[in-house]
Amino acid sequence: MATTPYFHGVYPILATPFADDESPDLESLARMVRFMHGLGVDGITVLGVLGEANRMLDREREAVVRTAVQATGGALPVIVGTSHSGTRAALGLSQAAQELGAAAVMITPQAEAVPSDERVFEYYRTIAEGISIPIVAQDHPASTAVHMSVPLLLRMLHEIPRIAAIKEEALPTASKIRALAAGMQRKVPILTGLGALYGQFDLEAGSDGFNTGFAFPEVLMAMVGAARAGDWAHVRTLYTRFLPLIVFEQQPGVAIRKEILRLRGLIAGARVRHPGAGIQPAAARQLHDLLDAILPGADLTRPIVL
Amino acid sequence: MATTPYFHGVYPILATPFADDESPDLESLARMVRFMHGLGVDGITVLGVLGEANRMLDREREAVVRTAVQATGGALPVIVGTSHSGTRAALGLSQAAQELGAAAVMITPQAEAVPSDERVFEYYRTIAEGISIPIVAQDHPASTAVHMSVPLLLRMLHEIPRIAAIKEEALPTASKIRALAAGMQRKVPILTGLGALYGQFDLEAGSDGFNTGFAFPEVLMAMVGAARAGDWAHVRTLYTRFLPLIVFEQQPGVAIRKEILRLRGLIAGARVRHPGAGIQPAAARQLHDLLDAILPGADLTRPIVL
Amino acid sequence: MATTPYFHGVYPILATPFADDESPDLESLARMVRFMHGLGVDGITVLGVLGEANRMLDREREAVVRTAVQATGGALPVIVGTSHSGTRAALGLSQAAQELGAAAVMITPQAEAVPSDERVFEYYRTIAEGISIPIVAQDHPASTAVHMSVPLLLRMLHEIPRIAAIKEEALPTASKIRALAAGMQRKVPILTGLGALYGQFDLEAGSDGFNTGFAFPEVLMAMVGAARAGDWAHVRTLYTRFLPLIVFEQQPGVAIRKEILRLRGLIAGARVRHPGAGIQPAAARQLHDLLDAILPGADLTRPIVL
Amino acid sequence: MATTPYFHGVYPILATPFADDESPDLESLARMVRFMHGLGVDGITVLGVLGEANRMLDREREAVVRTAVQATGGALPVIVGTSHSGTRAALGLSQAAQELGAAAVMITPQAEAVPSDERVFEYYRTIAEGISIPIVAQDHPASTAVHMSVPLLLRMLHEIPRIAAIKEEALPTASKIRALAAGMQRKVPILTGLGALYGQFDLEAGSDGFNTGFAFPEVLMAMVGAARAGDWAHVRTLYTRFLPLIVFEQQPGVAIRKEILRLRGLIAGARVRHPGAGIQPAAARQLHDLLDAILPGADLTRPIVL
Repeated sequence: MATTPYFHGVYPILATPFADDESPDLESLARMVRFMHGLGVDGITVLGVLGEANRMLDREREAVVRTAVQATGGALPVIVGTSHSGTRAALGLSQAAQELGAAAVMITPQAEAVPSDERVFEYYRTIAEGISIPIVAQDHPASTAVHMSVPLLLRMLHEIPRIAAIKEEALPTASKIRALAAGMQRKVPILTGLGALYGQFDLEAGSDGFNTGFAFPEVLMAMVGAARAGDWAHVRTLYTRFLPLIVFEQQPGVAIRKEILRLRGLIAGARVRHPGAGIQPAAARQLHDLLDAILPGADLTRPIVL
Repeated sequence: MATTPYFHGVYPILATPFADDESPDLESLARMVRFMHGLGVDGITVLGVLGEANRMLDREREAVVRTAVQATGGALPVIVGTSHSGTRAALGLSQAAQELGAAAVMITPQAEAVPSDERVFEYYRTIAEGISIPIVAQDHPASTAVHMSVPLLLRMLHEIPRIAAIKEEALPTASKIRALAAGMQRKVPILTGLGALYGQFDLEAGSDGFNTGFAFPEVLMAMVGAARAGDWAHVRTLYTRFLPLIVFEQQPGVAIRKEILRLRGLIAGARVRHPGAGIQPAAARQLHDLLDAILPGADLTRPIVL
Repeated sequence: MATTPYFHGVYPILATPFADDESPDLESLARMVRFMHGLGVDGITVLGVLGEANRMLDREREAVVRTAVQATGGALPVIVGTSHSGTRAALGLSQAAQELGAAAVMITPQAEAVPSDERVFEYYRTIAEGISIPIVAQDHPASTAVHMSVPLLLRMLHEIPRIAAIKEEALPTASKIRALAAGMQRKVPILTGLGALYGQFDLEAGSDGFNTGFAFPEVLMAMVGAARAGDWAHVRTLYTRFLPLIVFEQQPGVAIRKEILRLRGLIAGARVRHPGAGIQPAAARQLHDLLDAILPGADLTRPIVL
Repeated sequence: MATTPYFHGVYPILATPFADDESPDLESLARMVRFMHGLGVDGITVLGVLGEANRMLDREREAVVRTAVQATGGALPVIVGTSHSGTRAALGLSQAAQELGAAAVMITPQAEAVPSDERVFEYYRTIAEGISIPIVAQDHPASTAVHMSVPLLLRMLHEIPRIAAIKEEALPTASKIRALAAGMQRKVPILTGLGALYGQFDLEAGSDGFNTGFAFPEVLMAMVGAARAGDWAHVRTLYTRFLPLIVFEQQPGVAIRKEILRLRGLIAGARVRHPGAGIQPAAARQLHDLLDAILPGADLTRPIVL
């Protein structure tokens, strides 16, 4: 378990591996969880956008949670994405995750025809009142079409104690991180996402770490470590070195990340559930060249030494 | 069972009743199904947008299907909405519906970041290949953000024999109904939806009936009957008389329809699942006045005599 | 000039007539203005969505304003749509309209990547401070993608005295009209739009009239007159009689309205600017049948007697 | 004039400078044009998204074109953004640009309620038939909400000879560049945009250069030069070095780019037209630190030596 306060540090978002027939590949999932644990990450998140949660049945989602929790042996927090377009259903998914051993749930708000801060607030409060584990509030307008203002987020923090962290992915992230940090009466960690695209800038702005799917969490751990040590030159060096890969990887869809995870030996295949797109051969070649250039001669199946 | 060809006629879309704690009220659902059967509709549809399917867990959806099928006693086709943002999951929901006794599934396409006719086609074909009951293809860009062109829909009809009807709700509906009807080599029924907003015009354009949630299906049955008899003056009279109610009822959300169903004695309460909005008192008063004006002295709990 | 307070009553939104080569047909425009004046409307609006303002160059917009103002002979208020995605440009269009004799400007807010009530407020205030004629604030999320909350609209009313009316077109309109009316400290008229789709309901909710493009303003005038006289049965009769036409006409696009205006002898041709769609022959036939049924034997080129 | 074929190479997109009162600062514009010319770019583009064209009146746009053309002394091609939501108006803007000396126009398609490849095609063809200068077709769904498929773009190329280049900004860009290049019967250059975010990858995929607003075009010129020379290691080195700046700069809005242009001494002030957002002090500090780190000790007002 992390020795830093909860939700500081690096919480990789895991892909959900699928076999060629698109059935969940739970063996690969367990292997990936154990690898992340071995890296020393502070926790993991399953069933986010990268986890293709939106393409899965409820019972498949439960299998993913069960497998992830078991693979940690209880030694690593598992955060579970439980967003749903209905409040009661989101609560139901959250309660199921809690019963299966989740350490926290990660939740995005839901777009309604007429945007309403009040209904977003009620959504979070209702879920909070029905569970006993923390909530990571995810602010990602690009996927939700919901714009949570800084005042709304601060109100949520102050009136819903169960919200224990914010995953900030609303552009421009650094500005919003600064505004949130400045306004918090109760301090909670702010993690950045977006595949670490703005990693250096968000750490400079006060982000407490990463909650994202970049396939080399050890790089993010090194960046957080350097930031905590005040070694911003090292943060910058790490960010600059890996940024071409970060940029390439954060392109829409999950195919590129799954291909890296496959190359790292973590998942048996890079299959994406339809209608999601798989990686094209030319893009795969570009990715392989890019990895060779940034990590020449590296054994990707082992933790990268930085 | 309908004596007219399958998917001609009137297929009401049912709301899902909820108790005050938002749990499914299956007793009300069964009562509503029996009432519709008693009206002589050609079938019913559950778990559409009006059914708040998007706010329900998978196991809740199954309970709705089971209840609806049982309430018909096998004597009325039950169409089940089984759309999902993942193809395999939509197939899973469709297979579950089939096993529970559904007569057909109703399916919308899913929006992807880069629109692709090919992926929409594959989505329908994959589902079709995994089930043995018919598919009603629902074309409703307002809720799906997917624009299926007439050539795409015709290709789907011609290459996926399991598609047995089109529910046409893309504006302007009458033009699209005409274009589809003109282009079909294999003829399938086209039903109009949108709360019957364009009912007269869509029947004139060749629609074979209604698949929508207007809370007085007997009005729609009378319109279809008049249209089949060539009595267009009567179609127009019915449409004009009820159009203020149709317009009022098709406002966004499901609250008004649930209130009418409550007034008709079909559901115990008009509760809408959060974050959906319930009916406001002033709107409820307007609705009651409107019903009084259009159906003075009528006992709404009994079939309306036209 | 209207004897009722400003912005009460009926303000038709005018189409912009185009010749077959899509050049503005100012002669038709002047004829249409004179016809509306002859009907006794309270004012007219040019360069709204129906006016295809978004498909016109600035100098073409000026010609429309000049022509409309001249055709009224100064005896009828001309409201000019001057929305623009830049605040300073919206101000420039508004000042130009004022110089050309506009009685008021009609303005929608502009969507930004991150929604901001404050910027919407500033947009209106900046324009208000640079002109000396009233502003009609148009609330139409379907075309603007901006959701102005009731508190924001009330703040605008209370802090920007130049806002003299609200054109309310956010669904559900009746509820929003009630909420606005209840919250106003400074009372201003609220007009409904949307082609009069919710005309009866919005008048019941307290709307002060119509600001919309329905091609028979005399019907709307009769409805407003009946509402003012408290004769709600007559409001309902008028609404019910014309509702099929209202519904047909409010379908997306401007082609159907232009065809009616052509049939009324007001514009020489129904040409719509590309890429807007013209009316299809089958839709035109449906329209003609509909007009025959609702107004049998009527000479459409003359005011309809109700 | 460029010695490479037209539309190969680097065509910076210029911001439009504004004074503190938001009036166009044409002197700064001319200075910026001369600086770009001095760098040896292959041409410049004015009135794109970065140019805030959408916030300007037609007469202001004309002043920008006139100033830019004059500042080049006829020695550098000026491409002018002339997109408009009306086809005839886009043609009007294009003709005006041509008369003012534009070398080409850059045009995006317009979103309609019902997407139609045919109308997009007609839009381009109509403009092409009314001018005698080339068209750069800009494919940028993020700002247009129009998805032009590869077959549509190829049809446009083959049937509209006036289209002389494609500015490709649809994600994933590299894949689309490859597909376009593979499908072209008539070969035209493909330029990448998006602030050079995918610069290395798009050059690898066959892009012929850049048409974007990154404020150090000399970096992009060096990348194109290295790519032409087959020195991909140098492409990668340049891209990696400047990528943190590229990422920072491509955040939504134009404020960061204007601040860099100001720091380079090219524009007198970084004012953005309302409702666009200016740069926040904390973001400005981050930018200054970033520039110091990447270009330590450099005189930004002079061309960067690489």
